[in-house]
Formats: sequence, structure tokens, C-alpha cells
Amino acid sequence: MTDTASAPQRPRVKLKPKANARAIRHGFPWVYANELVTDRRTRKLAPGTLAVLEDEAMRPLGLVSVNPDSKIIGRMLDRNPEAQIDQAWFEARLSRAQEMRTQLYDAPFYRLVHAEADGLPGIVIDRFGDSCVVQPNAAWAEAHLEALTAALATVTGAEVILKNASGRTRGLEGLDDVNATLQGETPDAPVPVQMNGATYMADLTGGQKTGLFFDQRENHAFAARLVAPGARVLDVFSHVGGFGLAMLAAGAAEATCVDGSAAALDLAGQGAAASGWQDRFTARQGDAFDVLAALGSEGAQFDVVICDPPAFAPSKNALEAGLRAYERVAKLAAPLVAPGGYLGLCSCSHAADLTRFRNASARGIGKAGRRGQLIHTGYAGPDHPQMPQLAESGYLKAVFFRLD
Amino acid sequence: MTDTASAPQRPRVKLKPKANARAIRHGFPWVYANELVTDRRTRKLAPGTLAVLEDEAMRPLGLVSVNPDSKIIGRMLDRNPEAQIDQAWFEARLSRAQEMRTQLYDAPFYRLVHAEADGLPGIVIDRFGDSCVVQPNAAWAEAHLEALTAALATVTGAEVILKNASGRTRGLEGLDDVNATLQGETPDAPVPVQMNGATYMADLTGGQKTGLFFDQRENHAFAARLVAPGARVLDVFSHVGGFGLAMLAAGAAEATCVDGSAAALDLAGQGAAASGWQDRFTARQGDAFDVLAALGSEGAQFDVVICDPPAFAPSKNALEAGLRAYERVAKLAAPLVAPGGYLGLCSCSHAADLTRFRNASARGIGKAGRRGQLIHTGYAGPDHPQMPQLAESGYLKAVFFRLD
Repeated sequence: MTDTASAPQRPRVKLKPKANARAIRHGFPWVYANELVTDRRTRKLAPGTLAVLEDEAMRPLGLVSVNPDSKIIGRMLDRNPEAQIDQAWFEARLSRAQEMRTQLYDAPFYRLVHAEADGLPGIVIDRFGDSCVVQPNAAWAEAHLEALTAALATVTGAEVILKNASGRTRGLEGLDDVNATLQGETPDAPVPVQMNGATYMADLTGGQKTGLFFDQRENHAFAARLVAPGARVLDVFSHVGGFGLAMLAAGAAEATCVDGSAAALDLAGQGAAASGWQDRFTARQGDAFDVLAALGSEGAQFDVVICDPPAFAPSKNALEAGLRAYERVAKLAAPLVAPGGYLGLCSCSHAADLTRFRNASARGIGKAGRRGQLIHTGYAGPDHPQMPQLAESGYLKAVFFRLD
Repeated sequence: MTDTASAPQRPRVKLKPKANARAIRHGFPWVYANELVTDRRTRKLAPGTLAVLEDEAMRPLGLVSVNPDSKIIGRMLDRNPEAQIDQAWFEARLSRAQEMRTQLYDAPFYRLVHAEADGLPGIVIDRFGDSCVVQPNAAWAEAHLEALTAALATVTGAEVILKNASGRTRGLEGLDDVNATLQGETPDAPVPVQMNGATYMADLTGGQKTGLFFDQRENHAFAARLVAPGARVLDVFSHVGGFGLAMLAAGAAEATCVDGSAAALDLAGQGAAASGWQDRFTARQGDAFDVLAALGSEGAQFDVVICDPPAFAPSKNALEAGLRAYERVAKLAAPLVAPGGYLGLCSCSHAADLTRFRNASARGIGKAGRRGQLIHTGYAGPDHPQMPQLAESGYLKAVFFRLD
């Protein structure tokens, strides 16, 4: 389904006079539904159709993908309205993305493509050495998956390319949630990934999202700096042990990982065993709130406690309830921190900005009767670049406190 | 001048009913002038007087230092209204501060005390191995300098303790700007400091502030990650070569440092020479805006460009002009970045929050006709902790872009 139509035959869609054409001209990547003239012809375009975007004076602004059913009705693909979206086009974008990651990381394990900011709207690609996991979260990407896959194999040399269809936005784009193997053999075992001195086991087919959360790598590294020899550490909402294993690598005597998923904890345990740390690793399966409360009742204390919950405030509607949940996490976790120890709290909620999240965390700490210094604020790593115009919506924040 | 009066003899000062006693009870460290009952007795207190702070119902909230001439009329020193502010009290606070830095840093070169967040309002102490530089920026600190100095020598074992009186707020507190040697011999040569693989030369007596800006250490480290072997890099507003030397340590073929101060550039050159990098180091003295414009006219390009200017927006009044200056820096610097290269822009302005500063930077890049991804946002390092209640005013921000 590679698009080979030349520009003149492409449909044209037109901005309303009130639309912010200037912002789009200066790099803003989206056209909202209320900014576009949606005549019958436009409403009939199949999701993912490529079209030439014009301003109100019919001057072309670039090539967009159109999805009449989405609030984001247009996504800018190329400033050149005549661009051909073929394998060579994908190769150019992927090479540019890979060049930066090669500079930043010693080994090919990273987020290779982070959607809009890497010039590939709605597309996420994580690289695990010879394997890549693609999330085509927009209709145009699904339509061009063949060219994308071929380009990805060429640029990275990947032998295995998997499609993960779990992205929340696929439904909004009218796409299914069926995973697929796009190239090579479906892996039948987790892939070991080295980060921050630890080995993580990434399940590329059955795990959450693409199998590993590369975005937290820098925050894992900061948590590791807080570990004194012999420290006891707690990693709540641990998934495959992101913070816990990094802290074991830094010399923690004992790491306890808490998660609701037995499968995730099993992978964490495999990661610990891969480094010979199984005797220093404890898994505790259960609802994280319940386990936090239980540890509090037991009077347990740790030198470093990290909580990295799922998005409690994924949308504006969920903001207030989400902030209360973050406050509750902080309030339950703070008593578990030994005097002079450290507490790291994370949020991956778009709707909760840094200030609101930090304030909720500080409130929770205060309600637990503790006081602390804020020593570090971290975000997603540089393999998760952002468009400056969309930076306000940066989803991942981590705040680290030292408690009295 | 150590305060040895017992609590009953101390003056008492009272919050107005409208004051936020709850915030103070929960850890907010300041009392603003309009929150305190300022009767004749209170107005007559000498700046730096210790007093018991009471709420409107005369319940004691803690021990504060009072300065009737300052907008911040009270600074919370201790929740215990009967605390004795003596050498032992300072030793406890300094030990707590040092414990964290010892955990975080391999060698004793760091900001040891970062004022309110370290429980020592208005006091800044930088440690350079066996030497410490103290900035007593509040009247109470000046009054207790003897006990502080003795405690500092005991806790750190420092042989040399210097007083730096250049802090902007000293004037507001009615203090002079006369530096002094509080203990040991006044050093007659710069002190070498190892950070990020480079040697920096810190002038503890004649330089800016305490001689070195430890706060940028993590951002220096991030800039170093952007350096490919053989890269050419530019460090504008370089001071003693903070970013430039870190990038040379990371393998840059050539670093150009630009600063208005010949003395600072001389120290940068000494730092480069100390590592045998003098052939890869170029200093360019002059007004940074002029030099940026001149480099642009020359068509010079670099793989990494960093601009770390002084505070263009130190106060709310200066905000708009300051943001225009940040935009101008970005606009002049962006053309100097080679395609695919990196641009790091810093602000140490309290008044310019991250969003405003980032937007000004992005506007400048856009006006230079360039587009970029935001890959990293950094703050001051963890030896510059913040009180959560004051975190919004975090002064140092660094934003790193990759430019197309």
C-alpha cells in the first residue's frame, strides 16, 4: 500500500481562516478537526489518506495524513507537498533518528523512533539489538507498514520486526489491536537487555507495550546513585524490575520488587538471576497500595524507595482523581523510608504536569509526617525527544526527595 | 556572637490572622513582612535577631531569625523554639548536608550547603577539598559566623575557610560586601577541581561567586555525551570553561570558549593545559553577542554549541527583556550548529520559568530558520536541593536541542 501517486493527484484539504497556519508553518505538527474545512469530500477520505494541506489562500503547507474521524484530523508528514512516502523516505527519517541514538548509547537498545519528534507521526519503534518492535498508532502508518518495515530492516539490519498493536490511540484511528510478526521469526524467549549495569529481560511479544520501558533509563541511573553499600531498597510498581535491578547493580544488599503482575515479577527475577543476584532479590506480588500499607504495618524501612505507578491521570477528566492517587502513593511510601533515606516518585500521566505532580507528592509526604528536600527532577531520556511545541505535554516526570 | 540566651528571654513575634500559619507549620520556611504583626518592638529588632514565632493564638511555631528591613521578615531556623543556635546545632545541620553529598559524589568538591533546603536559611557553602567558601547572605548567619566556622572546620576538616560577601541579597540584609579569610591561609593560587574527566581551575578569592559553578555539573555531563570523536564545540559565556572542558574530556577535537572576562578565560586555558589539551583549546574574549554574530558572519559551524549566559531575567520586572535576550542568544547560536548537531541553552533566571525560557529558545531557533527536537531538560545538580515548597522558583534550567 505504499503511496506512489504524484502530488497533483492527491486530495487537497484546506485550513479554515481561524486556524493557526503560522504555527503549522513554524513546525506545529497537527491540524485539529475544528481548524479544517470539512466538506463532504474531506469527510469521505479514508483514515490515513495522504493529502496536500493548504492555507486559506490555497497555498500548500505540506503533505499531511488525514483522519476525518480523529480530533487530530491532520498530521504533518513532510513540508514538501510532493514528497513520496516510500521506502527511501522512511529510510531517511530512520537514519536521522538512529544517528542520534548511536551517538547517545553504547549499544543498540533504545527507543529508535518517538513519533512526531522524529518526523514519523504516530509511530513508535523500540530497538532491542537485532529485534525491533513497531507501534503503528496512526492510520497512515498502518497503511505504509510494508515500506516502513523494509526501511527499518535496511537501516538497522534488524532480523526480527514485530508489530505491537496495543497502543491506546489505535482505536481512535479505527485500527485493530492484533499483534503481528512483520519480519523474521517470532521470538520464543525474553530478550536480555543491558542497562545501568543490570540485565533486564524484555518480553517482546507478551509484555506491556514493547516489552521494556526505555524511558526511565536515566531515572534508574539516578536512583542507583542513591544506593550506599549494603542498602535495602524497595521498587513499587516494578514491572520487570527497572529501578530494583539498577539499584542491585549499584550495590544494594537487598531489593524488593512489588507489582501486580506475576509475569512481570518473573521477568524481574530472571533478570536478577542473570547477574547472580537472586539471593538479594525479593518479589512481592499484589496490589501496590495494599502491599505499601502492609509494609507500613510491618514497620518495614528501606534506604531507598521508588514508586513508578501506571498513569493515574491519563486524561484531563481523570486529573483530580489521579492527583489524589499520587498523593496517596507518597503518603504510603514515605513512612517506609528510613531517616536520611531517599524517596523517588514517578508519573507518566500527560494530564498531571510537573508542578501538580510534585505538589501532590509533597502533600503526601507531609501528611505522612515527614519532611524532605527535593534533590532531583528527571524526565524521559533523550531517546524520547519532544517537539518543542509539544514539550508542555511531556508525560514522564520523576521527583526524588531525601527525607529527614 | 553565638546566641546563648535561653528561650524565655527571646523576643516573640506574632503572625497576623491572615498569615498562612498552616503552610509554615507544614514546612514553608519564610514569613513575609505583611504576614507579621510589626509593632514598634518588632520593628526595632536588630537584623538577624533570633525570636520565637507564634501564631495568632500565641502558640509557638518555631525559632526564626527576624529582619524588620527585609521583605522576608522571618526565616525559620528550627521547629524547636528553644533550640540553641550554637556550634553543635551547626554541626548537626552540616553533618546532615555532608552525608548526602558524600553519597552522591566521589570526591569532596560540591555545594555543601544550599541554604533553606539544607536547613540553613540564607547560607551557601561550597566545598573544594580542604577549602570551603561560605556565603553568609542573611543577617542571622553573619551574626553566628564564628560558631558556623568552627562547626564547618569540625565536620569537614577544612583547613581554609573563606567568606565571600558578593551575594546580591546581603545588601537587602544590611550587610557589607567585604570578603574575609575566616580560617587558615588565604590561597594564592587557583584550586584544581576534577569534574566529568576535566580539571577546572577555581579562583576562590577573586573569581565570580565562590569560584566555580558546581550547579551545572550534570548539564556539563550531558553535553559531553553529545560529543562525537573529532567534534568541534563552542562554549559561549564559558566562565572557566565549564562546558568546553567537559566536552574536551569527552573527545572533542577542538573547543572554543567565549567570555567577556579575560581572567575567566585564563583559568579555562589553565584547566585545558592541566590536562595537556592546550592545542585543542581556543579562547575568544569579547561580548558574547558580538562574538556569536561575528562567528555567524564568518560562517563558522560547530557540532555542539552551548550558551550559558548570566541571569537575563533576575527579577519579574526584567522578565520580558530577559526573554527577548534568551531568544536573541538562541537566534544567534542556532546558525552556528552544523546540520544534525546539538544546541544547549541555559538560564539561571529565577523569573523565567522553564516553559517561558524553552519557548523563547524555540522561537529564537525558529527565527534562525532552523528546526529542532528537544532531547533533554536539566536543572541544578542534587547538591543544590530545593524545598518542595520553593521548587517552582528553581533558578537553573538547561534545554538541549538537536537541530535539523
